[in-house]
Amino acid sequence: MPFLNPLERHPIQLAPGIQARSFWGENIMLAVVDFEPNAATPLHSHTQEQAGVIIYGVVEFVIAGEKRLLLPGDTYLIPGGVEHSAKTGEKSARLIDIFSPPRNELRY
Amino acid sequence: MPFLNPLERHPIQLAPGIQARSFWGENIMLAVVDFEPNAATPLHSHTQEQAGVIIYGVVEFVIAGEKRLLLPGDTYLIPGGVEHSAKTGEKSARLIDIFSPPRNELRY
Repeated sequence: MPFLNPLERHPIQLAPGIQARSFWGENIMLAVVDFEPNAATPLHSHTQEQAGVIIYGVVEFVIAGEKRLLLPGDTYLIPGGVEHSAKTGEKSARLIDIFSPPRNELRY
Repeated sequence: MPFLNPLERHPIQLAPGIQARSFWGENIMLAVVDFEPNAATPLHSHTQEQAGVIIYGVVEFVIAGEKRLLLPGDTYLIPGGVEHSAKTGEKSARLIDIFSPPRNELRY
């Protein structure tokens, strides 16, 4: 199944107003993450390396204490163990998060 | 540098009309790939696992012999060693490719 269809997966809730649909292979996990307006992840970290890209909407990221508003097409790369958080404002947003290796908490 | 700016990187040419700007960490390599109209990669494979998402434009992918037109937001996951190719039609396109582990050919 190389072509992924998020509609085929039930979402899981990552935080209030934030849902993810995940897919994974051997080294890569890809999660389609949907934020409702005014939704926020807590500041957190994990050993897995993370990268991502904004698909639509605006997401305020804080990574290692650096804050940035990210727009569609903007990308980020978060080393393992580095604290980060993300939140939306008045509009909903979608991003793609990539983890390597896959995160067990997002396998379902 | 968690927030990546493609404009900070000189592109490398992957094939005629296809340029990439790559970034990498320990396990993840992220490449912003720009296709001119009517550009195509050869059918190829590599040991690294690959995932990706279309940012804008339309890209025809063939993965393991399965052909699909991908639109912005569409995603794919290519196991290591699986043959794949990608091409554009009348319009240019941008996608984000993720590799794990990073590909030495795209380090520069």
